[in-house]
Amino acid sequence: MTANDPTAAVLVIGNEILSGRTQEANLNTIAKKLADVGIPLKEARVVPDVEAEIVAALDALRSRYTYVFTTGGIGPTHDDITVDSVAKAFKVPVVENAKARALLASSFGDKGLTTARLRMARVPEGASLVNNPISGAPGVRIGNVFVLAGVPEIMRAMMDDAVSTLRHGPKLHTATVEGNVAESLIAEELRALAARFPNVDIGSYPWMKGRQIGTALVARGTDATAVRKVADDLLALMKTKDEKATRTEA
Amino acid sequence: MTANDPTAAVLVIGNEILSGRTQEANLNTIAKKLADVGIPLKEARVVPDVEAEIVAALDALRSRYTYVFTTGGIGPTHDDITVDSVAKAFKVPVVENAKARALLASSFGDKGLTTARLRMARVPEGASLVNNPISGAPGVRIGNVFVLAGVPEIMRAMMDDAVSTLRHGPKLHTATVEGNVAESLIAEELRALAARFPNVDIGSYPWMKGRQIGTALVARGTDATAVRKVADDLLALMKTKDEKATRTEA
Repeated sequence: MTANDPTAAVLVIGNEILSGRTQEANLNTIAKKLADVGIPLKEARVVPDVEAEIVAALDALRSRYTYVFTTGGIGPTHDDITVDSVAKAFKVPVVENAKARALLASSFGDKGLTTARLRMARVPEGASLVNNPISGAPGVRIGNVFVLAGVPEIMRAMMDDAVSTLRHGPKLHTATVEGNVAESLIAEELRALAARFPNVDIGSYPWMKGRQIGTALVARGTDATAVRKVADDLLALMKTKDEKATRTEA
Repeated sequence: MTANDPTAAVLVIGNEILSGRTQEANLNTIAKKLADVGIPLKEARVVPDVEAEIVAALDALRSRYTYVFTTGGIGPTHDDITVDSVAKAFKVPVVENAKARALLASSFGDKGLTTARLRMARVPEGASLVNNPISGAPGVRIGNVFVLAGVPEIMRAMMDDAVSTLRHGPKLHTATVEGNVAESLIAEELRALAARFPNVDIGSYPWMKGRQIGTALVARGTDATAVRKVADDLLALMKTKDEKATRTEA
């Protein structure tokens, strides 16, 4: 990865995540879709439905990363303040978007265009739309910020549209070695191995399944040859403790 | 809630969350355990296994909230850099903790105290320990920061110990009204209702289950009487569109 390669951040907006009512379910989807096109997700934040908090977090993230994806708070109710907050961050007014209005009209009919539903046609001035094939109300793109829904089914569909417009990064290669081995039993050798391959990110992820413990070692990088070599060495290391250790690549 | 009431933030540390390999699973547990003792979670961040990123995020959060809980990166491997990063943020050295060493010795035996495992006895100078009833290696508390494991089973047990030491906040009352109603159909009335109760947080959470759509309205606040009154009104509002709407309280 070079300084010119694209990066991304996620801003999750919603009291329901912070209160514990809702298990956050979009970050993982976004991370995977970005990894597929070579864009590493570098940071994520979760903030409440408070305009000043949204603006501050968005400004911190959009100035630092190539792309920012917000989730949540774009519906018709009083607690949906994302569009207004994004507009405030960009210092532009909120305007009604004619195309968004037409999309809502085709979903709900002209008579169904209530005040509440028309709120979903409001966008920061200068924004373009992100397609929502599920429920009509579109997402929004302004500058390097994509404003997506919080409902996972809708977010996922919007993200597919958003990803199609991004500048892709170098393909990321991943290999995973897994065995029924406590990570402390291989930690020293692993440290030495990692030091030999500074261009490959090597993660060690212990797990517990009932009383069984094990470790997944994950090598990740843009140099396919180096990732393969690291995976060879990781498998050999893991097999010194568990001869049934496995290896998968992606 | 007053300015003196405790608040909290979470700092999730781990490349595996940002790469999409692992679905984040601790934030929701922490949020619920804090809500149970009246401490609202106000922000969460996810950062990679990079010391400068951990230090910057930790400093931003610990200066602003009463308590900060970090998860991940406290094992024995090369990518476990949380303790060193926390020490750097607090500008103290990392030292071996005698009690932590004794705990590890009782888990692994004196002969099992390898270099790798002894790394888990390293703490920022001045830190106290957070009990780990699952796997021996303790968590750490320094100042207002709790350093917890990333493995969910272990994190949960450590969090129980951590919570027992916190200053509790005012009890939070919650009521939820649910119906098979699109939120746009009640959004205007809901906005007016929310405006009448500025001390009760009212969230509107649309959902989709296959082709069925619905909305959960959640009232939350420290004034039990006000929350009950809001719930009465939310139920009446929802019943204008779905007479089978339900109400639950916690």
